[in-house]
Amino acid sequence: MRAIWLEDQRVSIRTDLPVPDLKPDQALIKVLLAGVCSTDLELLRGYYPYKGVPGHEFVGEVIDAPSGYDWVGQRVVGEINISCGFCPACLAGRRTHCKLRLTLGIHGWDGAFAEYLVLPVHNLHAIPPEVSDEAAVFSEPLAAALEIREQVPIKVDERWLVIGAGRLGQLVAQVLAASGATLIVVARHAYQRELLDRRHIPWISEEHVQTGEADVVVDTTGTPGGFFLARCAVRPRGTIVLKSTYKEEILIDMSKIVVDEIILIGSRCGPFQPALQMLADGTVDPRELIQGCYPLDQGLQALEHAGRPGVLKVLIRMM
Amino acid sequence: MRAIWLEDQRVSIRTDLPVPDLKPDQALIKVLLAGVCSTDLELLRGYYPYKGVPGHEFVGEVIDAPSGYDWVGQRVVGEINISCGFCPACLAGRRTHCKLRLTLGIHGWDGAFAEYLVLPVHNLHAIPPEVSDEAAVFSEPLAAALEIREQVPIKVDERWLVIGAGRLGQLVAQVLAASGATLIVVARHAYQRELLDRRHIPWISEEHVQTGEADVVVDTTGTPGGFFLARCAVRPRGTIVLKSTYKEEILIDMSKIVVDEIILIGSRCGPFQPALQMLADGTVDPRELIQGCYPLDQGLQALEHAGRPGVLKVLIRMM
Repeated sequence: MRAIWLEDQRVSIRTDLPVPDLKPDQALIKVLLAGVCSTDLELLRGYYPYKGVPGHEFVGEVIDAPSGYDWVGQRVVGEINISCGFCPACLAGRRTHCKLRLTLGIHGWDGAFAEYLVLPVHNLHAIPPEVSDEAAVFSEPLAAALEIREQVPIKVDERWLVIGAGRLGQLVAQVLAASGATLIVVARHAYQRELLDRRHIPWISEEHVQTGEADVVVDTTGTPGGFFLARCAVRPRGTIVLKSTYKEEILIDMSKIVVDEIILIGSRCGPFQPALQMLADGTVDPRELIQGCYPLDQGLQALEHAGRPGVLKVLIRMM
Repeated sequence: MRAIWLEDQRVSIRTDLPVPDLKPDQALIKVLLAGVCSTDLELLRGYYPYKGVPGHEFVGEVIDAPSGYDWVGQRVVGEINISCGFCPACLAGRRTHCKLRLTLGIHGWDGAFAEYLVLPVHNLHAIPPEVSDEAAVFSEPLAAALEIREQVPIKVDERWLVIGAGRLGQLVAQVLAASGATLIVVARHAYQRELLDRRHIPWISEEHVQTGEADVVVDTTGTPGGFFLARCAVRPRGTIVLKSTYKEEILIDMSKIVVDEIILIGSRCGPFQPALQMLADGTVDPRELIQGCYPLDQGLQALEHAGRPGVLKVLIRMM
């Protein structure tokens, strides 16, 4: 099969990969559409060593699955953590924190920038018919945005600030707005601001962020600058949600965190079902984020496009 | 009046200070007993500039108060943050985070290592008669320990780890044990371990801390080493409570915080009423922590004693 291949921080298009074998309880999925995420770009830059097919945001069709399941022919999205099911974290219901987990297209498991991928049946979610492929491909990052809601209660009289209006920030903003949060987004680029305007979500530029006024701040930038802006914006006893990984270690004044009784919360993968529900009922529509769609053969151009500053979502179509 | 005086990181005993004047809604308190806290020692080391009388843990007797109050003659402890009452934080009920606050013996307000101090009546709590001066002098740090319980729910099936068994760690351990938490304390010194043994609170040494096993970790050390041990000990999606200020900035791998979805919570001053209640009903008895008691004239020796490694509580008696 054809796929994008990452090895020693070099990407290439390969045509010689075998269609992956199935183990019991796994499904073979024909990938229809995949999305490029910042994590993919970080892997390319050597964020950590990964050899294999990258990509973890996808829509596909189940081609083969264990008998007894009704998956074959279904259009699906899939959770990206492949967990053991038996470790203390799994048994406590924290499967995304399985100690032995592999991660689709990120760690030890070939990903979605390929004609076919394999996932445990347990990881699959059927896509409601009213959700297009172009919307469903956002399920994984939308679920990640929804994780915030799982971690921090949204109260009507609290002010949220979302730092960054990129591919993740836009989804976070849409999810929070749809969940009733009073929010403002710090947006840099004209198109990011236009998208927020269309949804009547207020935005400001960095220099207009007020000190110590926000009840909850979400940093979607994954940069030290984003973190320090969050730290400056949050009120005492407020909450900072860290929604993106950071490329480098950050030097933090922990005494100020103690004195101000700040809560810092790391936030990663989230629940797929409410994400699909939001896409089905139109509460969230991420399709305006799409700024490019490339066939798999032009996958390297897709990655290059996704890496340009301010670019939102770039998709790769497998056929 | 006599008092310990701090100026340019130098301490001295002064005998020439005037008894402070009262403003409306303030009480004049004759200090009976005061406790030396790590923050006092940090102030001496120049943690931040403070000129005046240090000390914020005290028991005293009200000598003068506005008419209409029944405070005169009462034995009291006092909250240390002097807040404005009118800023957004005060109006939202977060008076300990008042933007304009002064802090007894720490910031802009003469403290408890003196024959007399002044506090707003609002800050006072009457001490139940069954609580001795030697127990009541721990109200402030005990309230700080109780703040943890305000911030993190204590669940019976969760494992707590308290790092550090010093003057704050011992109180934290007693409060958590009395609140039903399943806990282990990381203790270094023989006397610290003996106190924990007496209360049947299990302890371990640092090298026996298990990686990623604790649900909630409280760092009471205020050292980068304590923080990194906490980070190592906490499970994914676990909570780290930062219960002590840190002398320096700490370089943190924020990506791991995000990937493991760790919650970091800064924790400072807490509620006095449950602290006094715990002292009254004997749930907590901190008097075994006392390792020295000096008259005010020997206050400098008291500070020197409190600063020795492993020393728990040193008191200063004013008469």
